[in-house]
Amino acid sequence: MHRFVPATLLLFLHLEHPVSRVFPEDSVGLVQPELAHFKEPLALACGRQLDEYELVYETYGTLNDSRSNAILICHALSGHHHAAGYHSESDRKPGWWEACIGPGKPIDTNRFFVVSLNNLGGCNGSTGPASLNPATGRLYGADFPMVTVQDWVHSQARLADRLGIEQWAAVVGGSLGGMQAMQWSIEYPERLRHCVAIAAAPRLSAQNIAFNEVARQAIISDPDFHDGHFLAHNNIPKRGLKLARMVGHITYLSDDAMGQKFGRERKSEQLNFDLSSVEFQVESYLRYQGEEFSTRFDANTYLLMTKALDYFDPAAAHGGDLAKTFAAASASFYLISFTTDWRFSPERSQEVVNALIAADKQVSYVDIDAPHGHDAFLIPHPRYLQAFSSYMNRIEI
Amino acid sequence: MHRFVPATLLLFLHLEHPVSRVFPEDSVGLVQPELAHFKEPLALACGRQLDEYELVYETYGTLNDSRSNAILICHALSGHHHAAGYHSESDRKPGWWEACIGPGKPIDTNRFFVVSLNNLGGCNGSTGPASLNPATGRLYGADFPMVTVQDWVHSQARLADRLGIEQWAAVVGGSLGGMQAMQWSIEYPERLRHCVAIAAAPRLSAQNIAFNEVARQAIISDPDFHDGHFLAHNNIPKRGLKLARMVGHITYLSDDAMGQKFGRERKSEQLNFDLSSVEFQVESYLRYQGEEFSTRFDANTYLLMTKALDYFDPAAAHGGDLAKTFAAASASFYLISFTTDWRFSPERSQEVVNALIAADKQVSYVDIDAPHGHDAFLIPHPRYLQAFSSYMNRIEI
Repeated sequence: MHRFVPATLLLFLHLEHPVSRVFPEDSVGLVQPELAHFKEPLALACGRQLDEYELVYETYGTLNDSRSNAILICHALSGHHHAAGYHSESDRKPGWWEACIGPGKPIDTNRFFVVSLNNLGGCNGSTGPASLNPATGRLYGADFPMVTVQDWVHSQARLADRLGIEQWAAVVGGSLGGMQAMQWSIEYPERLRHCVAIAAAPRLSAQNIAFNEVARQAIISDPDFHDGHFLAHNNIPKRGLKLARMVGHITYLSDDAMGQKFGRERKSEQLNFDLSSVEFQVESYLRYQGEEFSTRFDANTYLLMTKALDYFDPAAAHGGDLAKTFAAASASFYLISFTTDWRFSPERSQEVVNALIAADKQVSYVDIDAPHGHDAFLIPHPRYLQAFSSYMNRIEI
Repeated sequence: MHRFVPATLLLFLHLEHPVSRVFPEDSVGLVQPELAHFKEPLALACGRQLDEYELVYETYGTLNDSRSNAILICHALSGHHHAAGYHSESDRKPGWWEACIGPGKPIDTNRFFVVSLNNLGGCNGSTGPASLNPATGRLYGADFPMVTVQDWVHSQARLADRLGIEQWAAVVGGSLGGMQAMQWSIEYPERLRHCVAIAAAPRLSAQNIAFNEVARQAIISDPDFHDGHFLAHNNIPKRGLKLARMVGHITYLSDDAMGQKFGRERKSEQLNFDLSSVEFQVESYLRYQGEEFSTRFDANTYLLMTKALDYFDPAAAHGGDLAKTFAAASASFYLISFTTDWRFSPERSQEVVNALIAADKQVSYVDIDAPHGHDAFLIPHPRYLQAFSSYMNRIEI
């Protein structure tokens, strides 16, 4: 709930002396990112290694004395460490998971100590393609190694070590973040008590890979990509990144949600019958989304993230048997899917649920009837918040 | 069925004298395109007009004395006039609807006289953006006017006049072709006895438009597009067209079909962990499809076709009431949808069926359980062929 302050009073206070901004009561409020530098080399799945690297992260809430209330948040394709709260008093936009993290929210910061980081290869402060390569003194660009979900989990474990967290109360993530949560349960069974994977999948389908490939080809074939060394050319492959985001964005929304939001609504009453005009609102919306994204996201990071998605397939090491893959896991699992998600449909979560049941693991699952498609995991839909809270509130700390 | 000839015999004949190729018995065999020139100006929905134009077409079968057995085939986005048979003895690939047109096939050339044309704005012989503009003596390029489904139907009616066909036994089409068939029933109720619309929709959804918009932006933002005058620059926007086709192609196939065809099958056993290699077969397939298409299709035509799809909405003139839209129609309707088609799902055909029932029209409908997605209308799936034949065989001539 927002603390309600009459406008006249605010004006008065403003005239008297500078006033602290009043953030919503259920927000973690002002937050600051922190930086962890790691000098121990990290061996990567691709066979290469990072000699040293930095991870940017934020924390919300307070670590209890027994260090048993820590939650790790793993982000999705275009996410980052800033999951909740505001970076300044004038910051208008809160973190990307403000709907779910804060006092009284599903990830309740009155109970939990929340850690949220930007993954390796990212473009929001952790070491990635836009960082300086200490070995060459130049920007990594295309030379940044391919990183996988497994690599991320390894680097997240080191961050946990640094923060003195031996065991997470839960590792939580949506979409690609949910894949990291699952990988944690396989990789470090003893280091998490709960694994919460929302709108995730045990591996990409051919169609998922196909959409990623279109996005990658859009970026790579942009003449401004310069084989990935565009920053060194003082350039960005804006056209390609815009297209990549446009096609991605379609897969995040349901057909219904797009229909309800835009339908065939026109920009103007008369049709223009030309290519330069925008005829339908949905075209305008998509162009805006693509444009905005292309100015703030690194194209090499986008490529790396889509490849990490493609490569994720923990069952591959077990002959495709997902139940065997989870054999050593000891966490309790919670899976959430959304009825209208066609990127990672409910059936994909159910594959995981069925494997966990076959592996005799503790698992809860809910399929939320929500109209928003894949993006539903970011949206404060009442049923979702209730189902999410109900599980999180039962986690003992 | 293919006429089976032992390879040794073929070799022998080849040595003796040049031998006519033996085409399959159920093929129309060798066919030749014909050209019709129209000098009467055609007024277009966009407000402009074409002073003169040519339509390329093919015919299969024989027009009967009462001229009552003619079938018009309308093509989809990337289709053309060459729907059946072979253009030469060495031609390895038959027309695009060989599965459905020929002796004994659903559109049985033993009974019907089939007319198949390339639409205005096309790039396979009919007047389009790659044609010379007689007014300027230069290629049309981006100056070619926007054409709509309604414009196509008008131009097709003129071709019917030219061929002496007052009334089609049926107008038949899949996807965008089905939209033309429906438009015929609205525009010229007395000129067709049957309207067969396969895998069609009464209008595009916001998601459909969104995918088209991505394809268009891919082409338009390609530096080689030159504002649509790429041919005058001796260039083609290959990258953009390739991306457009890749994203389109994903929407033509079902998730299941892609999964069955490719799954997560790899190009090589070891993963390469780089961006230049192709890791999964589906990536290779998509790149090939895009590459091949980009060398044979005109980018301006692609833009025009997607816009024609976007604009198609015959109910718009009737306050969105589809039943009212069909009020004057007198044809019998046959609609076919495919269970796994997510581009124009069965529900989209059912909207049309429901409107036709509400408008008290004669309508038959079948939803075919086929795994191929939208592309199913091109594929000789037994259930589909049977349901299609069964209807066509009952058409009186």
